[in-house]
Order: sequence, then structure tokens, then C-alpha cells
Amino acid sequence: MTGLCRKEYLELIPPTEDDSRSAQVRIFDALAKLKEPIQFSVKSLRQLSAICQTADWKITVSLSWDGSRWLITNLEAGDTTSVLYGLAVDLGSTTVVLQLVDCHTGKLLTQESVRNHQRDKGLEILSRIFYTKDRPDHLEELRQLTLKSILEGMETIKNRTNIDVYQCGSMVISGNNAMIHFLTGLDPLPIFASPYAVWADQLGFCPASDLELPLSCPVYLVPARANYLGGDIISGLMDVDIQEKEGIQAFFDVGTNGELVIGNRDFLLCGAGAAGPALEGEAVRTGMRAAKGAVTQVRLNHGEFSLTVLGNVPPAGICGSGIVDLLAELYLNGWVDNRGKLMPEMSDKIVWQPDEEEYAVCYGPKLWFYETDIQEFLKAKAAASTMVQILLQQIGLTVDDVENFYMAGAFGIHIHKESAVAIGMYPDIPPERIHQAGNTSLNGAVKLLLNRSLIEKIPDLLSRMTYVQFGAVENFLHEMVAATAIPHTNLEAYPTIEAARKLRMTENAAAKTSD
Amino acid sequence: MTGLCRKEYLELIPPTEDDSRSAQVRIFDALAKLKEPIQFSVKSLRQLSAICQTADWKITVSLSWDGSRWLITNLEAGDTTSVLYGLAVDLGSTTVVLQLVDCHTGKLLTQESVRNHQRDKGLEILSRIFYTKDRPDHLEELRQLTLKSILEGMETIKNRTNIDVYQCGSMVISGNNAMIHFLTGLDPLPIFASPYAVWADQLGFCPASDLELPLSCPVYLVPARANYLGGDIISGLMDVDIQEKEGIQAFFDVGTNGELVIGNRDFLLCGAGAAGPALEGEAVRTGMRAAKGAVTQVRLNHGEFSLTVLGNVPPAGICGSGIVDLLAELYLNGWVDNRGKLMPEMSDKIVWQPDEEEYAVCYGPKLWFYETDIQEFLKAKAAASTMVQILLQQIGLTVDDVENFYMAGAFGIHIHKESAVAIGMYPDIPPERIHQAGNTSLNGAVKLLLNRSLIEKIPDLLSRMTYVQFGAVENFLHEMVAATAIPHTNLEAYPTIEAARKLRMTENAAAKTSD
Repeated sequence: MTGLCRKEYLELIPPTEDDSRSAQVRIFDALAKLKEPIQFSVKSLRQLSAICQTADWKITVSLSWDGSRWLITNLEAGDTTSVLYGLAVDLGSTTVVLQLVDCHTGKLLTQESVRNHQRDKGLEILSRIFYTKDRPDHLEELRQLTLKSILEGMETIKNRTNIDVYQCGSMVISGNNAMIHFLTGLDPLPIFASPYAVWADQLGFCPASDLELPLSCPVYLVPARANYLGGDIISGLMDVDIQEKEGIQAFFDVGTNGELVIGNRDFLLCGAGAAGPALEGEAVRTGMRAAKGAVTQVRLNHGEFSLTVLGNVPPAGICGSGIVDLLAELYLNGWVDNRGKLMPEMSDKIVWQPDEEEYAVCYGPKLWFYETDIQEFLKAKAAASTMVQILLQQIGLTVDDVENFYMAGAFGIHIHKESAVAIGMYPDIPPERIHQAGNTSLNGAVKLLLNRSLIEKIPDLLSRMTYVQFGAVENFLHEMVAATAIPHTNLEAYPTIEAARKLRMTENAAAKTSD
Repeated sequence: MTGLCRKEYLELIPPTEDDSRSAQVRIFDALAKLKEPIQFSVKSLRQLSAICQTADWKITVSLSWDGSRWLITNLEAGDTTSVLYGLAVDLGSTTVVLQLVDCHTGKLLTQESVRNHQRDKGLEILSRIFYTKDRPDHLEELRQLTLKSILEGMETIKNRTNIDVYQCGSMVISGNNAMIHFLTGLDPLPIFASPYAVWADQLGFCPASDLELPLSCPVYLVPARANYLGGDIISGLMDVDIQEKEGIQAFFDVGTNGELVIGNRDFLLCGAGAAGPALEGEAVRTGMRAAKGAVTQVRLNHGEFSLTVLGNVPPAGICGSGIVDLLAELYLNGWVDNRGKLMPEMSDKIVWQPDEEEYAVCYGPKLWFYETDIQEFLKAKAAASTMVQILLQQIGLTVDDVENFYMAGAFGIHIHKESAVAIGMYPDIPPERIHQAGNTSLNGAVKLLLNRSLIEKIPDLLSRMTYVQFGAVENFLHEMVAATAIPHTNLEAYPTIEAARKLRMTENAAAKTSD
């Protein structure tokens, strides 16, 4: 398996008058075995004199693939082939995550998450995009903030590991189109404006200097498929690999926006749409991101809530996975009906709020979840589940035909699959067929670092992906309204949930009776 | 014929929701007809937004070949395909000559010669090299002076033509190894020190940023064959093209150093050596380079000199071609014998110089040429002519087997072929077989600009060239001593010269008698 960087230890024969080939030609001749084009950077040629002489012509050559050829980026004295690093970067809109990988062994050496400083100019991607509208200076600000975030992560890793990450042999960055446009200083407006044709979505290998990153290796920016289907999703596919499998698979990266790919080695259908910020714990009153103090899990047994909180602190709010749990428990216990209406007769924790003129449930100390919060979240889950529904309908399939569901993103990591099924966010299929795939964008970036042949497959992959415009699908809105119910208007699609609800409510009633 | 740059005018279809391909993909698709890999620079991607919108998607794309692929370096509104420039640079140790070429028509637009500012640090290449020994800061100074020279030439051309030469689509630089080492900041010491293995001699395509040249196109540095056989000679071969011809050819670039290639499409023999500065008008008392005030031609009729002087000024000194003429005339008139001894009995212009204790001839107002000057020059011409002699001997040939002699360099431009034959510097062959080829390094650079296939042939050309170390040839010194005579110790090799001398001396005697 050939990665994006490699090292070759060469014991060169020192020149004589009979063999006065240049040092450069000696290295070319020694590397002819690679059978691939090789080019020196001028910077590495400048190292020849000192390195060859101090190391008695026993040197290690660092090579980085630039898309067409191996670029010699560094020379070292002696054999340093065992020291070979690459950096994978998930350029997320909230957080930038970097992994330093030992490209020799493929092992993860360390990971660092840093705040994406773009947030200084807007929490929402859309507000950042509008900040740059007709303002090249603002676009430049965002470019600098993006660079700052990446460099901050690199510097932290360097200080922690004592590894000079600026000498890494390869870097792969995956991010959605907005992130890549900000990183490269491209006008991002078309991403969110009809006809949704972005300026550039096939960045690929770029000289680090084009990006103003202080590296000697080229940087690979994962290409995108469409405005909303960015390099993060293509990178994610490299991780979950549905495009190589025989059975039908679904890959879903859901957050404020949802991106979905369904298919197998024979076909690939994809689509993307807004699900709403509620899935990430925003747009609900006590919602928060999955940070310290966030309620990530909720259980409601015998009328009492038990909460799992991130960090050893009192609960401060509730994140996406907590909300899914909360709604599932409320529904299974009959505290909420299938339209999301709270049932005050079921518990004295459900209290009329005179200021808001609506009911709310107290799920923790001073933590209230309102009926309008429920509605907000149900709209988001409806949007997400309808994407799956619609994409499957396009090819005349149902969820039962799908062998595996891969759920990407932070949302998928903490979520209880059973709860997600209970509220109709995930389809009603056995939990072992639903996989919490984690940060697939980052994992895919690592795979691309380590395996050049995956990069070579990307153009073909992109051409195989049929993009479905959800907005153009006739029954999308109708389906979405039906999906706003818990778990769904069509209860037949969720046979196990109704059974579970009846069972739980019967148990509760029995427990109450025995009290 | 594909050059190193091209432009393509594209009338792109503006995006719609049904065809929301990115602008980048639209351009890739439109350029698919080139059937070669294409890459955008990030800088050119940043132009997409403004250019596509102002030009209603009718744009011109500039492409520069980087050795493996076409790099999109610039975008312009509308059809600008007729405006396509390249720069050819002959990086000489004394003078840097730049030609701006219309790559659309192949026509020369303008030429500019600038002083090579490296001369601030030494007139001789060797003194510049020693200036950098163990002093990276001095090497950096020379690198900066080299850049300064090129940039000065570019700036002058820009101001004169109003053409933005920094936007040129291609640049080829040819120069000897020392020049290329200085330009790239490589330690040049091995060029002149055993075992004569330089650090790098296959620069080829370099990103302009690696050289700190403010261009968006890559720069091609012509590769070298050996320490003394630099890119200027390889470029020169591209011009005279002896390697493609059937008959045997000789290509000789002679100055302070001489570089020689003999052969044809079947074989190529090459060598290089020091000829001495006398051939360039140095190391003789009234010698000067071929600049304003230099005597370039000399005639001696009936005891009187007539001089041709560069520029409309009185003669200030004599350059190489003038010296060749002067010595030829002195010899043909019998004023000097075949050992270079002046014959004072032939003219009262030959006067004993008490201070120098030798004879000198007054060839112009206050301009004296000394017997030791003659000796200095004869040693240089002997070295040059011996190189030809020895290389031919290696393959059992004589000058009569050589179909064409191509004489490169400033030396060759002004020289009278007949005079060069008369003193034995050129072989005694018909003048129509001797070609004054001019600045072949520059001419070759222009050909490389305009024809990429020539560049692709260079690796094969280099491998075909057999390098002869003159120092290792047993009879070199013996041959050189024999060649110090005028025209040569072996008069049989110069049958026409002895006849011409006898004729001229008889005419002179007759004229004297008739006075």
C-alpha cells in the first residue's frame, strides 16, 4: 500500500573522476526502482551539499506525492526511514480536528481538537458566508482564521509530541465546501444560492505555499460532489466504504445539515438538506453542544429521570443525543403523544408555563423542555428521516433492503440507537445494522494519507454518485409532515416501537398499582 | 507544435439548477480535449468569481506546462488567445540576455541585455565561486545578484513594451553550471574541483516561487551534461541541432572556456576546457570586450592598418575578433613569423619597447600589440583548436570529415572566418562550412519555449553524449604545443594559408617596387 509520502534510505557511492554524475543524478538513479516520476524541490537540492558530506553519502530522501509525481521535499543524514509522519485534518465548521499519523505503521500518534476561529465571524456557516458577501477583505479574514485554527492545532501537537509537524510528509484536509472555500479564499456565496454551482470543488493536491501553510509537502484537499455534498462526505465514504460493498448501504452524516449516500458497488444515490440546528442541541431553550455539562443520556423509570452528564459537573443543558433519549423516554412512557403534545396528566413534572403559555417538562434541576422545543426537534428529525425515506423511494427500496446504516458525526457517537428508533429518527431495524461511525471525515482523511490508490479512485466515485435535489422531489414535504409524528404517522413502519410503548406503559401502570 | 504555454478561449454555459457543475469542473470538461492532465493554481481559482461573472462565462484560460501537467495560471475575460508571451533567458556570466517571444506566432518581440550583477563579486567565474566557499551568506548574495539581473531585464522590457512580462506563460533559462548553481543557491565549488561532480545539473521545471521569481508560470532551467558542459550548451544544441543530422557536425562555443560537441544522429562526443581569456579580448594589454570603441576588424594593406570600430567613436582597444584579424593580417603580410615573433624589418610600425623589453606593433592611435600579447593569444587559440583536433582523433576522423562547424558565442559573431583560418584557429576548410551561429544558448532557449517535444528529447540527448576529459587524453599537451604556431606546426593541414601568404607578400613586394 503506497501512501502520500515515503522515505528511501540510499547508500550512494561518492563521486570519482571516473563517475562524476551529479548528486542529483545519483539520487535519481537510485530511485529509478520506484518507476515513477520524481522531482526535487529547489529547497531540497540546497540540502545536498551539507547532508551528503556529513553523512558520507548515506542519506534518507523524503518523497511526497503531488498528484503526478514524487516531490523530494527533504534530505536527512543516515537512515531515518522509520520516522514518517502525516497529518489528517477534519476542517469542521465548529471544531478542527487534527490527527498525527505514523505513516510507517499507520498508527495514530496523537489527536488535537481546536476551535474553528471562523466562529469569531458567525456561529452559523451561513452568517460567515454572508459576512464575506462583496467583501474580499472579510473573505481574507476568514481565510486567515481558518489557517490560524489549523496552525494552532499543529503547534499544540508539536509542543506535546516534540515532533516537528511542519516537516510532515503529507497532509489531507477534508471539509465541506464552505470550509474549503474559506481555506482557499474562494467566494463561498454560490454554495447557498441558486443555482448552487460553486466556484471550485476539485481542489485535490495543492502546493502548501498556495495555501500559505508552512509545509514542504503538497496538501490534498478532498474533492466534493455537490454544493452541500462536500469533501467531508467523500472522505467519509473512504472510511465507511459503502461504494465497494455488495449489499445496499446507507451513509448518513446528520447535524444542522444532513448528507446522505445510499447504494453499493453498483449504484450510489446521494442528497443533502437542512435538518435544523435542533439536532445539534441548538434552537431548543436548554439545548447545548456535546460539551462539559451536557446531558447526553436520559432514562425515565417509574416517573423519575436519571441523567448522564459529560464531565463531572451538574447538568447545564442537553445535547442532541440527550434530546433523542428524552423524547424517546417521554414517548415510551406515554408522557408525550405521537404529535409531540405533552400529557400533563401523566406526571407532575409536566407543568403549565404561564409566561410561555405552553407546557414544559422538568427533566433535571432547573432544566425544562418545552412543547415548542419538542416541535422544533421533531421537525429536524423529520427532515433527516425523510431524506432516507425519499432516497430509498427513488430506487423503489425500503429500509428493510438496507444492510447497514452508517451514522457519522458527533451526533452519532453519543446517541442511543434504540431511542433514535423510538422517535422515528432512525428506521425501525435491528440495532446491529446501525453503526455509529464517528468522525468519518477524519477517519477517511487518515485512510487517504495512507493509501494513494483511494485518491486515484475518487474521480470515478464522484462520477458514479447521482445527486438527488430533495427540493425537486414532489412528495418531499408531504413525507416530511408525516415524519414529524413520533415515531411516524405510518405506525406500521415502526412495529417494534408500538409494542415497546405498550409494554412500558403496562409495566408503569403495574408498578403504580403495586405502590 | 506545442510550446510550454498555451491559451484556450472557452465559451462556458452558465450554471443552472439542472447543471450545477462547479466553474472549475466546467473548465476541466471544456479542456478535456487536450487529453493531458490539468491543474488549477489556487490563485487562478480565486479569479473565477470575478472573471466568469464580468465576462458572462466567456473566458480565456492560460496554461503553463510544468513537466507533468498543464497548470492553469491565469484567467482573463473574453478572448485573449492572441496575446501569449514567453521569456527566454541566456544567463551568461558577463551579460544576461532576455528575449520576449510571442508564443502565438513564434516571433521575437524584443531583446534586452543586462549586466550580470554577479560581476560585483568577481569578473572571473572562478573568483565568484571562491567568494562563496564556506560562506552561505556570500552564496545568497550571488543568488540575489543573479535574480536582480534577470528582474532588471524583465523590468526594462516591461517598461519598453508595456507588456506585463510577469504574466508571461513560460520562461526558459539556460546558463552554464555556475550560473544555474548561483541562481538556485547551490554550492558551486564542485564545478571546478575534482572529482567535478556537481550537486545538481538536472533542474528542469521549477516552480517560480522556488527561485523567488515573481511569475505564475513554472521556469524551465535547461539541464547540463557535465560540470563544464552546462545547460547553455544543451540549449545551444537545440539551436544548431547537430544531433539530428546525418553528416558529421561540430558545435563549438569558445570564449574563456571552450565547449565542443562533435557528432551526428548516430554519435555525440563532447568535451570542454579552458582556452584562456585572450579569446575574449582579455589578458592582452589593449584588449577589451566587444563593446563600444572596440576594434572588431583589422585590415593591413600596403603597410597601413584600417580598423572597424564598434560605435561611432575612436578605437579604445581590441576585442577577440579584432585580434584574430590583426594576427592574420600580420602573418599574411609577413610582419610576424609562424612562431608569433614580430619582424621589425617589415615595418617601422614595429617598434622596440624599452620598458617592456620586447617588440610591439602600433595597430592604431596609441594602440600597441606586444609580442607577449601575441603569445598569450596563440596559447588560447591553440587550446581551442586542439580540442577540435583531439575530439576528432578519438573517433579517427579529420576536419575534412566534418560537414559543418557551428561557432557559437559573441566571439563567432564578429570574427572573419578567413582570418580565423589564417591563424589556425579554425580548420582550413571552405568558409561556407563554417557557420557563425550567434547566441545559440539564447536561440535554443527560444526553441524550447516554443516546442515542448524538444524538452522531452533532452534526457535521451544527454545519455547519448560521451564526455571526453581532455586532461586524460595522452597527446593533448603535445598537440597543443604544435597548434601554438601560426597557423600550425603542420603546415600541410593549412594548404590554402601558405598560398595566400605567398601571394600577399608577392603583391606587397610588387607594390613597393612600383612606388
